[in-house]
Amino acid sequence: MTQKNETSVTVLGLGRMGQALAGAFLKAGHPTTVWNRTAAKAERLVSEGARLAPTVGAALAASPLIIICLTDYPAVRELLDASENDLAGTTLINLTSGDSAQARATARWAEQRGARYLDGAIMAIPPAIGTAEAVILHSGPEADFAAHRPILDALGTVSYLGADHGLASLYDVAGLAMMWSVLNAWLHGTAMLRTAGVDAATFAPFAAQIAAGVAEWLPGYAEQIDRGSFPAEVSTLETDARAMAHLIEESEAVGVNAELPRLIKAMADRSIAAGHGAEQYPVLIEEFGTPR
Amino acid sequence: MTQKNETSVTVLGLGRMGQALAGAFLKAGHPTTVWNRTAAKAERLVSEGARLAPTVGAALAASPLIIICLTDYPAVRELLDASENDLAGTTLINLTSGDSAQARATARWAEQRGARYLDGAIMAIPPAIGTAEAVILHSGPEADFAAHRPILDALGTVSYLGADHGLASLYDVAGLAMMWSVLNAWLHGTAMLRTAGVDAATFAPFAAQIAAGVAEWLPGYAEQIDRGSFPAEVSTLETDARAMAHLIEESEAVGVNAELPRLIKAMADRSIAAGHGAEQYPVLIEEFGTPR
Repeated sequence: MTQKNETSVTVLGLGRMGQALAGAFLKAGHPTTVWNRTAAKAERLVSEGARLAPTVGAALAASPLIIICLTDYPAVRELLDASENDLAGTTLINLTSGDSAQARATARWAEQRGARYLDGAIMAIPPAIGTAEAVILHSGPEADFAAHRPILDALGTVSYLGADHGLASLYDVAGLAMMWSVLNAWLHGTAMLRTAGVDAATFAPFAAQIAAGVAEWLPGYAEQIDRGSFPAEVSTLETDARAMAHLIEESEAVGVNAELPRLIKAMADRSIAAGHGAEQYPVLIEEFGTPR
Repeated sequence: MTQKNETSVTVLGLGRMGQALAGAFLKAGHPTTVWNRTAAKAERLVSEGARLAPTVGAALAASPLIIICLTDYPAVRELLDASENDLAGTTLINLTSGDSAQARATARWAEQRGARYLDGAIMAIPPAIGTAEAVILHSGPEADFAAHRPILDALGTVSYLGADHGLASLYDVAGLAMMWSVLNAWLHGTAMLRTAGVDAATFAPFAAQIAAGVAEWLPGYAEQIDRGSFPAEVSTLETDARAMAHLIEESEAVGVNAELPRLIKAMADRSIAAGHGAEQYPVLIEEFGTPR
């Protein structure tokens, strides 16, 4: 049942994600104003208690907190530039997908307009919004995050990353790279095992255990990176590279795609060529940090 | 303290790993015979109670169970071919690193010699042998694994994969691919975050949480692969590919290596070009299963 909640909020943009955000605020009892270029998308939300603002200006004026969820950053700037509202005392939280440079530029723009500004990234699909599964990252002034955290909690598991407005976007894409990499390594292994008649469900728990186990090493390996010192406590990069050659040979022998193994080995080979063969895996940070 | 244990075992090959294996058997109280081309490597083990066999033939005759841990498979065959022992009633467990084809070929050879044969893969470094952390995979006839499991338990966490002798090698390299992929995605993200002044230790727990979280999806995604049906329950490959483009752009913009993101997108793009854009990520199994 809906509880009463005094803190009002406006949601700009009612695509699938914007509708999910507004719906979560309504469910938590927050007076919620919505706006969308095509007003029809507000229909269901209005039936659930949302107020539809007739203009962007009215939507901005309706609440001290404005959640923005549009197609892209140019759409955000175009929309806000078209309004003439005094944004002093208004906090904008921009959850639109974009990159770190766009987030920082939009923060500078907001500052010029007198608005407080947080950038955010949603690591979830619309149906997960309003549940703990929805991870929502925020970056910008910590005081602004703290001030609005109680209302943001309605959206899912919210977290604060730091003052640099670009952090939410960076963590977002870094997290996606991790997601796709786990999936791709698993798909590669699954493809190999299928050549021996092993089904995907049989292999999956083994792969999952390795991924979760290796995840536990990361904090320790991170210390090596932050110290800039990579003693071979577990194994040397040269030993690893020999096993990588086995992975490539086996992939080719059983007839699956070997591009992922080849990239893995190419990175290690370059680091060995740069003189790091007797050091430990995280020394590869230097290769990953070099534009290519 | 050493306990008495009746089951005797022979270890052929005393590199760092072979020494660790023999040491673990001794520690568990098993009468242990060892052999190595250069006998000096047996010194420490002999002082701990191992019997040094003067010849391979004597080593093979000393125990019903022979653990083999040499440099590579050709070395295994060369060594065993040089012996004239009757291997009926002897079980060979070959923990030498190699590929699935070598494992299967060695199994056929062992059968011709009248020996029972299991192939194995050690997913651990020598110092971990004898602890639960050392994962040792076995494949071959299940009855042979079951018969020797009590003694194998001295080595670490042992597991049985199936009758196909090639499985231990395949799981081994698939596990390594998973390990390197988690590390590489983490290094990629770390390199990106470092451009914003975030240290590796700050980013590591975030990356670890994503890797462990995605690992939990694998059994569910495996069901899609085994059914051969990939409905877009979470998101479509086309939506994923747009986010992959963001990852590439961000990687390039902040000046880190973008090869991993480009490979991720190339795999998805090919699957989309093959008509799978409206399906879900695991449909990429078809790309991973295609030689390239």
